[in-house]
Amino acid sequence: MDRPEHVLKKPLPPALATALSLIFADRYSTSEAMRAHHGRDESSYDPMLPDAVVFAHSTEEVAAIVKLCHTHRVPVIAYGSGTSLEGHVLARHGGITIDLSQMQQMVAVHAEDLTATVQAGVTRKQLNAELRDTGLFFPIDPGANASLGGMAATRASGTNAVRYGTMRENVLALTVVTADGRIIKTGTRAKKSSAGYDLTRLFVGSEGTLGIITEVTVKLYPLPEAISAAVCSFGSTGDAVNAVIQTIQMGVPVARVEFLDENGVKAINAYDKLALPQKPLLLFEFHGSPASVEEQAQLVQTIAAEHGASGFEWASKPEERSRLWAARHNAYFALLQLRPGCRAISTDCCVPISRLAECMLATRDDCERQGLVYAMIGHVGDGNFHVQMLVDPDNPDDIARAEQVNRAMVSRAIAMDGTCTGEHGVGMHKMDFLVEEHGEDAITTMRTLKHALDPHNIMNPGKVIAW
Amino acid sequence: MDRPEHVLKKPLPPALATALSLIFADRYSTSEAMRAHHGRDESSYDPMLPDAVVFAHSTEEVAAIVKLCHTHRVPVIAYGSGTSLEGHVLARHGGITIDLSQMQQMVAVHAEDLTATVQAGVTRKQLNAELRDTGLFFPIDPGANASLGGMAATRASGTNAVRYGTMRENVLALTVVTADGRIIKTGTRAKKSSAGYDLTRLFVGSEGTLGIITEVTVKLYPLPEAISAAVCSFGSTGDAVNAVIQTIQMGVPVARVEFLDENGVKAINAYDKLALPQKPLLLFEFHGSPASVEEQAQLVQTIAAEHGASGFEWASKPEERSRLWAARHNAYFALLQLRPGCRAISTDCCVPISRLAECMLATRDDCERQGLVYAMIGHVGDGNFHVQMLVDPDNPDDIARAEQVNRAMVSRAIAMDGTCTGEHGVGMHKMDFLVEEHGEDAITTMRTLKHALDPHNIMNPGKVIAW
Repeated sequence: MDRPEHVLKKPLPPALATALSLIFADRYSTSEAMRAHHGRDESSYDPMLPDAVVFAHSTEEVAAIVKLCHTHRVPVIAYGSGTSLEGHVLARHGGITIDLSQMQQMVAVHAEDLTATVQAGVTRKQLNAELRDTGLFFPIDPGANASLGGMAATRASGTNAVRYGTMRENVLALTVVTADGRIIKTGTRAKKSSAGYDLTRLFVGSEGTLGIITEVTVKLYPLPEAISAAVCSFGSTGDAVNAVIQTIQMGVPVARVEFLDENGVKAINAYDKLALPQKPLLLFEFHGSPASVEEQAQLVQTIAAEHGASGFEWASKPEERSRLWAARHNAYFALLQLRPGCRAISTDCCVPISRLAECMLATRDDCERQGLVYAMIGHVGDGNFHVQMLVDPDNPDDIARAEQVNRAMVSRAIAMDGTCTGEHGVGMHKMDFLVEEHGEDAITTMRTLKHALDPHNIMNPGKVIAW
Repeated sequence: MDRPEHVLKKPLPPALATALSLIFADRYSTSEAMRAHHGRDESSYDPMLPDAVVFAHSTEEVAAIVKLCHTHRVPVIAYGSGTSLEGHVLARHGGITIDLSQMQQMVAVHAEDLTATVQAGVTRKQLNAELRDTGLFFPIDPGANASLGGMAATRASGTNAVRYGTMRENVLALTVVTADGRIIKTGTRAKKSSAGYDLTRLFVGSEGTLGIITEVTVKLYPLPEAISAAVCSFGSTGDAVNAVIQTIQMGVPVARVEFLDENGVKAINAYDKLALPQKPLLLFEFHGSPASVEEQAQLVQTIAAEHGASGFEWASKPEERSRLWAARHNAYFALLQLRPGCRAISTDCCVPISRLAECMLATRDDCERQGLVYAMIGHVGDGNFHVQMLVDPDNPDDIARAEQVNRAMVSRAIAMDGTCTGEHGVGMHKMDFLVEEHGEDAITTMRTLKHALDPHNIMNPGKVIAW
């Protein structure tokens, strides 16, 4: 079997370029600007440009493009909204980027079954806007207004995952174009199934390296009857995180619980014109019936108080809640302002909940020792946190120190039986850590899957698994 | 590559028999009785005997057996507690059955992280007994006291799934022996992860055809502060199921909701000496704080009343609850008494919740038309139900009529965007339906996975996917 070590970057075969140009007319582009736009994401990598970009409108169009690329052994990269963080969409070996952002169809909203099927380019905000009159919502919220296809491909999660799970738990079925251009459906709208190999979960999180997701069927949830949010400050990161650990161990079904350290609070205070105490902070949200929300909140307030929380403030009006959550959502951009002109290196790990305080404190010590400008934020209810480090892209030493913190943090998380990435995915940045986490034998199994499903290494090559 | 159409049944290679006998001594058996015991499950199939049975005590022993079988190209079948329902453990092509039931080690209970790791032979009841003093429990309950390895392998679920999910959602990581005898760990104890291909979910539900699960890490949950159960009767199956549909659509977080039709009630009345009204019945369980349980129960009682429910009875004392749930758990054996001397053919399908009443009523009509002795039961909150049909094993016409009902029910479920098996798995019985459900192209992808991970077709051959 033909198993190229790499698909090398080489000029596009003229026959392929001609065919795509004929079929897609002005939806096919080789302009420098278009290629540059698609050769970057929110990571700190320098851009790597594809040879051409095609805007697809349907699963069948994606299949046609992949078939052509398969014939010509040219790399294919799926592009949603470009908000990934680990270099997922960079055209490491050139090739064709398929932009799915115009695949905007709401294929079917089945409110009566709590499911929706959308084309891959629909974003989570668009889906929720569409659902406005149904009394339902889609909870997964990674911060960015990412496309559903991209969220599925990276197994995204975010703030609501502690209550509602991640894309792993919330995707019911996918339409996928395989590496040879076949179209498969990976599941049905049944809530559970034991019908064969779990293709849905195999493609969720595969980052476009096994196939291209073109439609996504997700679970929906009734809008909670009552929602309330609370914010409180702590004397130390350890106190804040220990309050969260106890909350989770007691099984309180909080919908969200977000941590920001004092640097993070400083940044959002400045960016969002807030006046939060510049101390480690937890931001809670409770969903349920009015009585259940009240009960959860009382319990959490008691736990927080035991850990020295101060300023437990309620925000049960939608506009107050929105202001707080907007600040949390803007944290990425707010943090960039901590060191203007610099670029952010974001880390991401997830550990068993009992180890979270220890892991975060050791990581913070590393940042301090390295003299970095940084902030720590976290979806702490899941044991998941990030360090955002502001580095001068022209200063290799800066970058090296940040990467050293990242490496130490990931190794620490793995030693605690945690993972090198809770939700950002592997992309290019975590490939080595994947081996450290899973071991050579499991990586061999992953590689076997990659070789079997993409024997010519054309699907987003150079990501997740080294060939 | 060597891709045998079938691994044909042939005498065990003497070198293999000698090696296994030397290593395992009296834990290796070729006795007729031992082979017969392992050549059957709870399905209606006639037994198919393996050539030998080995009792393994560790992952390393399983790996040693698989390596030998790999060398000799001999089938390997993993056997847990033998409670599967679709012929999963039958030795269709002979070979070695590895009995994992003596793999009974609690590898690690991490109460502080809400996780437990156990060897594959530990059963769900054993795990819960072990957890008794921790304040935690493992909720997945397929009825039978199945082994955790078997439950993971068939992607089992059962009564609690409506609230807590299935094995798909509750397995964090597995230790798996691959077809060439390597040992891999498929995940960590982190609650969420985006670290590469989801090997855990690939092996969950693969029924021993891709590898053998030897250890399972599962999520645990705090025991609910309050539990209450309620039972109520309805004038018709349609009324009962419509009450459930409304309950789910409103997002009431019921922990369990089970349906029994009038035949099922008759059977458990007789078997368990109960005096339930002989009408379609729903059995609810609510978990949460006292206030939340009360709130859920009130809401459900109102919904049930709107659908004409009568006799809404509460059972909040543990002994009353246990009596009701014991009756539900005995339903399989109770139903066998509806036609003594007969064998049960169990069906299993799952549809989007809004279609459940329609699907169940049409299936009941089929049973009546065919003049079968049957009962319908269901984990209706998930859109999942079963028909148990009592057939005379010596009467081919009886069996044919039951299989006709099964076929029609499955086709109907698939047409409703549901699945041919909600929780029992594929085994031998659902292989054709798998094609109907997923389509040839998706089956090709599943077959590619099987060929890649088990190139010599030695792992439980003749199950799930035709070679």
